[in-house]
Amino acid sequence: MQGLMQDWPLTLDKILDHAKAMAPNREVVTRSVEGPIIRSTYGEIHGRAKQVTAALKNAGVRFGDRVATLAWNSSRHMEVWFGAQGMGAVLHTLNPRLFPEQIAWIANHAEDKILFLDLTFVPLVEKIAGQLATVERYVILTDAAHMPQTSLPNAVAYEDFIAGWSADIAWGGFDENTAAGLCYTSGTTGNPKGVLYSHRSNVIHAMAANTGDAFGLRSRDVVLPVVPLFHANAWALTFIGPMAGCKMVMPGARLDGASVYELLESEGVTLTAAVPTVWLMLLSYLRENQLKLTTLKKVIIGGSAVPEAILRAFEEDYGVEVVHAWGMTEMSPMGSLCALGPEEDALPHEDKIKLKLKQGRAPFTVEMKIVDDAGKELPRDGKTFGRLQVRGPAVTRAYFKGDGARRADGAALEADGFFDTGDVATLDPAGFMQITDRAKDVIKSGGEWISSIEIENIAVGAPGVANAAVIGVAHPKWDERPLLIIEAAQGAAPDKGETLAYLEGKIAKWWMPDDVAFVEKIPLGATGKINKLELRKMFADYRLPTA
Amino acid sequence: MQGLMQDWPLTLDKILDHAKAMAPNREVVTRSVEGPIIRSTYGEIHGRAKQVTAALKNAGVRFGDRVATLAWNSSRHMEVWFGAQGMGAVLHTLNPRLFPEQIAWIANHAEDKILFLDLTFVPLVEKIAGQLATVERYVILTDAAHMPQTSLPNAVAYEDFIAGWSADIAWGGFDENTAAGLCYTSGTTGNPKGVLYSHRSNVIHAMAANTGDAFGLRSRDVVLPVVPLFHANAWALTFIGPMAGCKMVMPGARLDGASVYELLESEGVTLTAAVPTVWLMLLSYLRENQLKLTTLKKVIIGGSAVPEAILRAFEEDYGVEVVHAWGMTEMSPMGSLCALGPEEDALPHEDKIKLKLKQGRAPFTVEMKIVDDAGKELPRDGKTFGRLQVRGPAVTRAYFKGDGARRADGAALEADGFFDTGDVATLDPAGFMQITDRAKDVIKSGGEWISSIEIENIAVGAPGVANAAVIGVAHPKWDERPLLIIEAAQGAAPDKGETLAYLEGKIAKWWMPDDVAFVEKIPLGATGKINKLELRKMFADYRLPTA
Repeated sequence: MQGLMQDWPLTLDKILDHAKAMAPNREVVTRSVEGPIIRSTYGEIHGRAKQVTAALKNAGVRFGDRVATLAWNSSRHMEVWFGAQGMGAVLHTLNPRLFPEQIAWIANHAEDKILFLDLTFVPLVEKIAGQLATVERYVILTDAAHMPQTSLPNAVAYEDFIAGWSADIAWGGFDENTAAGLCYTSGTTGNPKGVLYSHRSNVIHAMAANTGDAFGLRSRDVVLPVVPLFHANAWALTFIGPMAGCKMVMPGARLDGASVYELLESEGVTLTAAVPTVWLMLLSYLRENQLKLTTLKKVIIGGSAVPEAILRAFEEDYGVEVVHAWGMTEMSPMGSLCALGPEEDALPHEDKIKLKLKQGRAPFTVEMKIVDDAGKELPRDGKTFGRLQVRGPAVTRAYFKGDGARRADGAALEADGFFDTGDVATLDPAGFMQITDRAKDVIKSGGEWISSIEIENIAVGAPGVANAAVIGVAHPKWDERPLLIIEAAQGAAPDKGETLAYLEGKIAKWWMPDDVAFVEKIPLGATGKINKLELRKMFADYRLPTA
Repeated sequence: MQGLMQDWPLTLDKILDHAKAMAPNREVVTRSVEGPIIRSTYGEIHGRAKQVTAALKNAGVRFGDRVATLAWNSSRHMEVWFGAQGMGAVLHTLNPRLFPEQIAWIANHAEDKILFLDLTFVPLVEKIAGQLATVERYVILTDAAHMPQTSLPNAVAYEDFIAGWSADIAWGGFDENTAAGLCYTSGTTGNPKGVLYSHRSNVIHAMAANTGDAFGLRSRDVVLPVVPLFHANAWALTFIGPMAGCKMVMPGARLDGASVYELLESEGVTLTAAVPTVWLMLLSYLRENQLKLTTLKKVIIGGSAVPEAILRAFEEDYGVEVVHAWGMTEMSPMGSLCALGPEEDALPHEDKIKLKLKQGRAPFTVEMKIVDDAGKELPRDGKTFGRLQVRGPAVTRAYFKGDGARRADGAALEADGFFDTGDVATLDPAGFMQITDRAKDVIKSGGEWISSIEIENIAVGAPGVANAAVIGVAHPKWDERPLLIIEAAQGAAPDKGETLAYLEGKIAKWWMPDDVAFVEKIPLGATGKINKLELRKMFADYRLPTA
């Protein structure tokens, strides 16, 4: 028997309709790429987004076509999102931080029909325009007065593109499973893969992401999404802002400490979100200028694990609550948030800090489990670690145009309806999840798993050590055993004996590395993480003394 | 083109699964009908609810069958909810406040197969059991030790009913539009009508109801739903509690001031919700005993309009935030909540109080508009009032076994996909809605509408007036004109001239009643509201002096 409730498809246009009805005059403030601060409102954005829809239709964009953006966070960027999604086109955020060739490859794979770009990216796009096989039109997110000389074919200023079109055009009216957004993710191997969000997945994800222990925005909050729209949809904040009817502050192209600080203070920001590197810049600016944060209450940090120094600085020096978050593009992106509950509130400060370094708890709509290599579920005891698998309405089941069976790094995408994250983690009885390793980096010794990251985190503290890496090396009896690789600090010359002695008692006996190797420089990847693929190549023929 | 996200039906079993994974040891505390305070946890409730599922299947209950409850808020009642809904049966809450004949009529109409009842209601059900044509089994929500002598056929104690069944039974796995709950609503005319909720509607409703400006629960909150599960699903709190992973306190049968106060203080409650009469009892108990509320932060008040005295007492005397809420059984029930935004925060205290008497703003997933009799949308100017119509995923589109075209009071159910609430309201530019009248009570004078309630609210303040009512009386030129009906205060004898003089300047000239009639006693309905149906009968042949 079916219920008898209204059929109200969960489509994204309804979010902006809601903001227009309930908070039409609430501001969306943008530091424009042209320079000045621009003030808009949900009411104005709603009207202009509808003009975008009309202009897109006139430009030949149809239901399901891909509309690409290469742009910073701004009210104009939001207008393009809702304008494209409201008519059932697919908003595709290109990431300007990729190599130009990758951007071209992705735009061609996505078959983007039209590209909206900020002034910043005109030179970049001019270089690759010749390779963009499907883009018919370039819309530069500015007005006629700021329009540059450009070789881009069929280029037009955004304000001219939307000018004259009526805001009286219908949105929605299609199935909630209609594709709404496309975002590519790149693994260490293979081509980038497109995650194709639906209206339903984005709406449910935004509702879940705005519950109390997640973002928890109220209409009196002011939110500054420093995390870009091209980075996993700015963690849903451009949907949550209008859903909550709260003021938004869009930072444009300037994400340095001084610029972010100025917006935080001048606009009265209460919640902000970004990756750790942004906060390093802000904190160093605050220290150098002896400044305080007078309105900020909560900062969401994700993208990579929160360094303890950043956590302590915000909480201890500036009185701002840090919420450590974890997710993936394939999860829309939210997977977990480390908000404390009543039991944790009662802990001593140092225990709270330790707990906040965990990735946290899944909000409702995210299911998590850890499994062994055979797919058997492992206990939630806070000690056992296994492959982290997730399930939910905002989790990917296949990639755009892909076979659907492989993750970006080549691993199996799903088992039992669960998506394999490629991470190894523990889950504790209170639900807190902690990432302990990447699945491909975990060391399998005699059927048991050893976390490379845990040993590394301790080993970097040993005397004379600048950086430390641990990889698994083939062993005739145990399959694999850990090899500790050390980059010595300037002028220091740590030896094997004293380094291993430092680890004694800090890790389990059977985790002790079988050997220590010293290198000039530990190779790092583009994002500053240790390049283990390279290390494994370097030590491919390494023979352990225990072998 | 469709998105490529996982198919994860929004079914209610997932809410309790979530609580079990993320807050297994969080308490659900019940003041049991037997007397003592009982402490349970989400983990235990999850296991026992699964036992309910197994026991229901064994008792012959199948997918889609109706499982009825006649019970107070308790952890056992929650177990029955999730146990029935988890297997795809329909949980039907019977309202013990109705007349026994109505309860019997409703149970027969619903074709309830099994009835779970509290000890309190055994005598009541014994009286009507002979009329209950479809109920095969009576489960009394107690254990063997407290089992009463009863004439109920096939009666069993709840603890015996679930004992021995394994908690290892699957939940969910069906379409999210599957019926999940049934709740009857009664209009002033005709038979009660059943609202048939779906899993999807209840899940989306609970997520929307728990956003920041609505309930906004975090895991560190403690929630006391005084509003019963049989009153429009306790306003979704039994879903929101486990969704947020927060502690719950269930008041059982005792809703008097002393009992509610004791739970608020002893369990550290931070948020509670109920109708105004409950708060009158609590506030009078607090005053008589000179008590303070030390942990409570927010009280949600709905069911009928919040009286100003209650609002002021909570906010001014006890420092507790009042959120005025409005809804209907047909809306699952949440329609609007009066949380203030940043502009309103800046208002003087008296203006805030005035604003908080409005019914508030719709959360995302509720669409509202006001229309005239022809269905034309009216302006959102805070002055124009029209029929309030709503739309959303948790709004009824038809009644159980009904033709779907009529509301409980006989009016048209839908127009343009919008549900007609039967209320007349204003909407202001900031989104605040205020109910000004019931549609059937509004006076239509020359095509313009006059609010009977607004005139009544002013007229009760006139000298010598105990109560005042306004109804429309036929008029040859204007169709209808207002007649003011006065019940004089003890020993007073107000006259027409001075009563009308009191209204002058307080209402628009054309709203001035054409006449004043004096009655011994203004007839009231069962809930204490003015019985306008009766008044209209009494004055059916009344001839206005202006006619």
